[in-house]
Amino acid sequence: MLNKVVIFGVGLIGGSFARALKAAGAVKHVVGVDRSEAFLSRALELGIIDSAAETGKAVSDPQGQTPAGYRFEEAIAGADLILLAAPVAQTARILASILPHLDASTIVTDAGSTKSDVVAAARAVMGDKVRQFIPGHPIAGRETNGPDAAIIDLYQGKKTVLTPLAENDPAAVERVASAWKACGAIIHTLTPEEHDKVFAAVSHLPHLLAYALVDDIERKPHSDLLFQYAASGFRDFTRIAGSSPEMWRDISLANQAALLTELDAYLAQLTRLRASLAAGDAAALEATYVNAQRARRQWIETIEAAEPPQPKDAAAE
Amino acid sequence: MLNKVVIFGVGLIGGSFARALKAAGAVKHVVGVDRSEAFLSRALELGIIDSAAETGKAVSDPQGQTPAGYRFEEAIAGADLILLAAPVAQTARILASILPHLDASTIVTDAGSTKSDVVAAARAVMGDKVRQFIPGHPIAGRETNGPDAAIIDLYQGKKTVLTPLAENDPAAVERVASAWKACGAIIHTLTPEEHDKVFAAVSHLPHLLAYALVDDIERKPHSDLLFQYAASGFRDFTRIAGSSPEMWRDISLANQAALLTELDAYLAQLTRLRASLAAGDAAALEATYVNAQRARRQWIETIEAAEPPQPKDAAAE
Repeated sequence: MLNKVVIFGVGLIGGSFARALKAAGAVKHVVGVDRSEAFLSRALELGIIDSAAETGKAVSDPQGQTPAGYRFEEAIAGADLILLAAPVAQTARILASILPHLDASTIVTDAGSTKSDVVAAARAVMGDKVRQFIPGHPIAGRETNGPDAAIIDLYQGKKTVLTPLAENDPAAVERVASAWKACGAIIHTLTPEEHDKVFAAVSHLPHLLAYALVDDIERKPHSDLLFQYAASGFRDFTRIAGSSPEMWRDISLANQAALLTELDAYLAQLTRLRASLAAGDAAALEATYVNAQRARRQWIETIEAAEPPQPKDAAAE
Repeated sequence: MLNKVVIFGVGLIGGSFARALKAAGAVKHVVGVDRSEAFLSRALELGIIDSAAETGKAVSDPQGQTPAGYRFEEAIAGADLILLAAPVAQTARILASILPHLDASTIVTDAGSTKSDVVAAARAVMGDKVRQFIPGHPIAGRETNGPDAAIIDLYQGKKTVLTPLAENDPAAVERVASAWKACGAIIHTLTPEEHDKVFAAVSHLPHLLAYALVDDIERKPHSDLLFQYAASGFRDFTRIAGSSPEMWRDISLANQAALLTELDAYLAQLTRLRASLAAGDAAALEATYVNAQRARRQWIETIEAAEPPQPKDAAAE
């Protein structure tokens, strides 16, 4: 049982973590921190958080404490676990703001989509205290955001990747893992570098490719005609191009090296396919298409076999 | 009211056309032709077709007529409308087989995903009789196939593109349009060349890109690790890589010139984005992502506004 958990960012990711912990009876008190006062009020109203903390900025206000909750330093002190669920570009700023108030027994983790850059920021800001920081990445999400998007079972049966550091105490890593397991997640462990290579290939590159295609079509003189005939295949292929441009700009740059490697491999692959197409090489085209269809079918079968059945309210039982 | 319609290919596309015409009371008798005896039997059983015709090959059998239906030449003679819903690579062979039995009043149309190659085949095979051939392409489909996949409302509210030829009698074009309208489709008209350019951009290129990505990942030494962490974004992005490799090999080659043009534009776009990423040019990346998100959102809003509500069984009323 965790006595006090502090969540930076009370939207989909942080809010769902809080809801799941509460539903599992794994936490006594959740404190929310957010740049948005509206999000904090709504998270309180929905019972996602038990109290709201003043942000570092608001604490400098002479009025001090808010009616709903803590002064910022009081929120941090004595926390068992702090989750950073704000955009990754804010990681360094948030870590710097909590550092002066951080107890030696408090564990800090995050939910960012990239890990090497987060680890570099944590090392730069926290110094020796980086041993208290266990980087993580829950592989779950939706296109919605804000406290109203937070749900109890977002992480049920989904993977959470932890990328522990050499400095971390194994017991601290286990406590973060336990919290995610209480949310229904399955824990996987990678190094930060492995994590970033894997997600460059299966997530970051597809996002870039989808954005690139829609932008390419939109800039053609006859784009209206083209969009008029785009159908369900196009809709699914480009769904991820509906994601937040700011978030994906940051992820692309945070994972620049791995993403460039994957993009270059893909460009080489397209160049090969182009040559096959130009040569009218039916066998070469078919070999690529057949291999892709077979591999995708096998992947779908594997994930469908691996995903446990998800009864409604399973996490609430 | 059409007296006799002959459908080559009694699967998803042809079978749904037959079902919709029947539901609308727009046809008296549907004859099915298919390479697969099992598909023909099933289509009869399901009431999709009223009789099955021997294929050209089977007609050479001395036993002649099947219990269920027509000899091939009898099926073609006196037909009001013949729909080719078989793979496009079979177009020339099918047209050649029907030509000797084709009445002057019979209209022939098709449902192929490419049009310039179909028109070229029709001109080569049919000669003057190409005036009886009105090329078409219903923009509807699913990943399932066979007679059991055929549904009444597949075309309800969807576009069917006709690409009429200079030789076509406008009244004949109107009869094909009427049949599709009876199925609930909305008629659009393009030239065969316009059609192929449009679908190269919004359908054929995305298929090639999706196949290329899955194949690229599958050939990496650590592909098992990569597939393990692929999630819902990857699933949607690559859904079209689950399509028939043979069908898409044929489409890629049938629309080679237009597809090469689109692929080259996309390669140039990726090369620009690669340079922005390598330079750490956040503004350039963001501009592309923002434009893509905005364009996609606008497209989704437009299609949602344009698509009529689809009550269940609307086509059956």
